[in-house]
Amino acid sequence: MSSVYVHFFSVSLDGFGTGEGLSREEPFGHAGERLHEWIFVTRGWKEGGSGGVDDAFVQRHDMGIGAEIMGAGKFGYPGWENDPDWKGWWGPNPPFHTPTFVLTHHTRPSIEMEGGTTFHFRDTSPAEALEEARAAAGGQHIRIGGGAKTIRSFLAERLIDHMHVAVVPILLGRGERLWDGQEGLERDYAIESVSSPSGVTHLTFTRR
Amino acid sequence: MSSVYVHFFSVSLDGFGTGEGLSREEPFGHAGERLHEWIFVTRGWKEGGSGGVDDAFVQRHDMGIGAEIMGAGKFGYPGWENDPDWKGWWGPNPPFHTPTFVLTHHTRPSIEMEGGTTFHFRDTSPAEALEEARAAAGGQHIRIGGGAKTIRSFLAERLIDHMHVAVVPILLGRGERLWDGQEGLERDYAIESVSSPSGVTHLTFTRR
Repeated sequence: MSSVYVHFFSVSLDGFGTGEGLSREEPFGHAGERLHEWIFVTRGWKEGGSGGVDDAFVQRHDMGIGAEIMGAGKFGYPGWENDPDWKGWWGPNPPFHTPTFVLTHHTRPSIEMEGGTTFHFRDTSPAEALEEARAAAGGQHIRIGGGAKTIRSFLAERLIDHMHVAVVPILLGRGERLWDGQEGLERDYAIESVSSPSGVTHLTFTRR
Repeated sequence: MSSVYVHFFSVSLDGFGTGEGLSREEPFGHAGERLHEWIFVTRGWKEGGSGGVDDAFVQRHDMGIGAEIMGAGKFGYPGWENDPDWKGWWGPNPPFHTPTFVLTHHTRPSIEMEGGTTFHFRDTSPAEALEEARAAAGGQHIRIGGGAKTIRSFLAERLIDHMHVAVVPILLGRGERLWDGQEGLERDYAIESVSSPSGVTHLTFTRR
């Protein structure tokens, strides 16, 4: 059976997965790229990068993912639903290379991109989206790509099997919280934590 | 010059320093003792306890503290201000053994306890309380004992020199948040993190 993964979703110490003031120019708002800098300096991301625990988590990214699910807030800037030409942030060849389901109340026809990514727009529940993604994944795993609100909705129904969260030592103060409404998650998930010399702490959640 | 310390203030993964529903019977509300269990199993707390990184942080607790400051919410249950006989949670010989300043809008005469602890009740700002505590500390250090709201108010004015926060891998979902309103703290504090096999992650903040 295929599993459902969250891979290196990054949050600040105060639990924000993105900042405030998101726009086409500032996809993460006032957070900028500060939540993700730790990724960009690993070997998995660029030649000559670091090869420690951060890299181990980055390199585990590609592990037989057959379908991706993301929220409307990850696919585009606030208002993309009114832009018929918007095809995501990632250019003509997005890094997913699989069927990719975008959860949105504003559906539109599917968009086939280069490299195997096809965006499908669905106005459905997490469980229904997962069922369709599983059928499309051809026996491979499914990744929940974010953002925070989407991950929360899948967590709330315990639909995620393995989640990796990277806690970055900055305080954003405002934005979208990952942990809201997750009381008692530790009863259903085994939680490990390991800190890296980079200052990032990696949390893993494995469903019991 | 004496320094201002926070020692092993414990929060949940979602940043709560105490639960909801505090009372005389449940000092930490629905959190119970879950935020502090990691302390109770160290060698610093009991014979035969663990001797690793958790213990190192616990044993650093006593390092020449000459005065303590705490909030009204740490000194007693909600409503203690109306109980003229309330002398704190800690029995006749509290573990502070120094002048201990309780920040409250409901002041009362000082209470001299056994073992060197004297509670003073002050309706003043963090900076004023610190000035008085420093004078009382005889050149030794000052500890800010909590709770979350009190620590936040001292952090907001950058009055804390060294802070140790223990992040416990549980999700409380509700209660009093430590991190609220602390955007950009990393600019003024060097932050280190180290995770323990117990699952706790220790964060240290050192003022730059």
